Amino acid sequence: MEQIIVVKVGGKVVENPEALNGLIKGFSALKCRKVMVHGGGVMATRVADAMGIKTTMVEGRRITSDQMIDVVTMVYGGLVNKRIVAQLQHHSVKAVGLCGADMNIMLADRRPPVKGIDYGWVGDVKHVDGKALSTIVESGVVPVIAPLTHDGKGQLLNTNADTIAAEVAKGLASLYDVTLVYCFEKNGVLLNPDDDDSVLHSLKASQYEAMKEMGIIKDGMVPKLDNAFSTLKHGVKEVIITSAASLGDLSRGTHIK
Amino acid sequence: MEQIIVVKVGGKVVENPEALNGLIKGFSALKCRKVMVHGGGVMATRVADAMGIKTTMVEGRRITSDQMIDVVTMVYGGLVNKRIVAQLQHHSVKAVGLCGADMNIMLADRRPPVKGIDYGWVGDVKHVDGKALSTIVESGVVPVIAPLTHDGKGQLLNTNADTIAAEVAKGLASLYDVTLVYCFEKNGVLLNPDDDDSVLHSLKASQYEAMKEMGIIKDGMVPKLDNAFSTLKHGVKEVIITSAASLGDLSRGTHIK
Repeated sequence: MEQIIVVKVGGKVVENPEALNGLIKGFSALKCRKVMVHGGGVMATRVADAMGIKTTMVEGRRITSDQMIDVVTMVYGGLVNKRIVAQLQHHSVKAVGLCGADMNIMLADRRPPVKGIDYGWVGDVKHVDGKALSTIVESGVVPVIAPLTHDGKGQLLNTNADTIAAEVAKGLASLYDVTLVYCFEKNGVLLNPDDDDSVLHSLKASQYEAMKEMGIIKDGMVPKLDNAFSTLKHGVKEVIITSAASLGDLSRGTHIK
Repeated sequence: MEQIIVVKVGGKVVENPEALNGLIKGFSALKCRKVMVHGGGVMATRVADAMGIKTTMVEGRRITSDQMIDVVTMVYGGLVNKRIVAQLQHHSVKAVGLCGADMNIMLADRRPPVKGIDYGWVGDVKHVDGKALSTIVESGVVPVIAPLTHDGKGQLLNTNADTIAAEVAKGLASLYDVTLVYCFEKNGVLLNPDDDDSVLHSLKASQYEAMKEMGIIKDGMVPKLDNAFSTLKHGVKEVIITSAASLGDLSRGTHIK
């Protein structure tokens, strides 16, 4: 099978013009089939603020009201997505920006209330159309995917970008040798969050569970790694957690396989 | 040659849920190859207002500052485009939302100042990739195009949606028998703007010029009709100006050929 790299770019990278520029260059230089998935939460909160719409987060997840689904549709599907696509074109990457509704690539169910918390217009992915994505990729076009899904009944839904990246990687796993790369503002999984050089070069499931119990790995890193390990069970070959600046050298960062 | 219909939907239709719903149903029912181009100016002005960003129009055209290009990218490329795509999926239309940067379908030059007026980040279309659009259409997918172009150097540009529709129609004219349909809130070109039943059933270039001189056709209708007549010179077979509600019966409205 051919290799494909699914690169997830975090909201803090997207927000920072210099970091984004480096990411775009690194991504453009990748000499294989590729897909990008991006976040944009920081920018969504900023736009919501400017519009006088309050952002409420519960355990790192955005409560998505009627007004907030419009904000994230604007920011993820419009501002962030189209900016990245325009910049990729400048680097001769024939990109196409997509959300889950486009070509029906990602169908989701609205999340029912969890422990009494109604997350609003949030979607849990039900199906990724790996074949449709593959058709795009094989025509020489690079999908750039915004973290929005839809319910098939006309409603857009907000879905966590790390989860989207994992689901896209899984959806492609029967068609390609998939490497999933999470690019964020740190150099990888750090033993000491205050020391950027304390990168774990590799991480096994058993180690992860132990480190999680000891509280060495915590906070936002936990759902990211839970997503990473879940993809391995669905045929993804390797997950790499690294910085946006290191996309050009994938021997760096934390390797999970 | 196969027939294709390019449907342009105005901002006032997009803004009104009931009108949009009717339009989506009518568009979904069209039994031929099709493309949609939409506006969204009314909504862009509303979002700009909510963000405290001033909207300045000169002769019906939006001055597009650094802040305003972000607003229109959000509203046209995100909110309006993805909402329409999600609703079309609900009606079993396999739609894909695109702006000019996506797959590089519409390249533009930034408009130089005109009579001392700098329109800002506004693009004049230089090239539409009709072949790329045709590849999408022939794969059974329906392009839904937002009125945004790009300069190929990473910059998005704001382009009038009527113009985009005309350029897309021209770009497809060597590949298909193209009918361009402008759907808006009126029933067609009206002899008396206050009488919705005074629709001109057909309009020839010579009549148009005479009526323009007499001031019977004026204001926003002039650039729309200028666009319409220019497409006929570039191989488009017919232009129909009609209401969103009449998309199911194209014998209505004003016919230009």
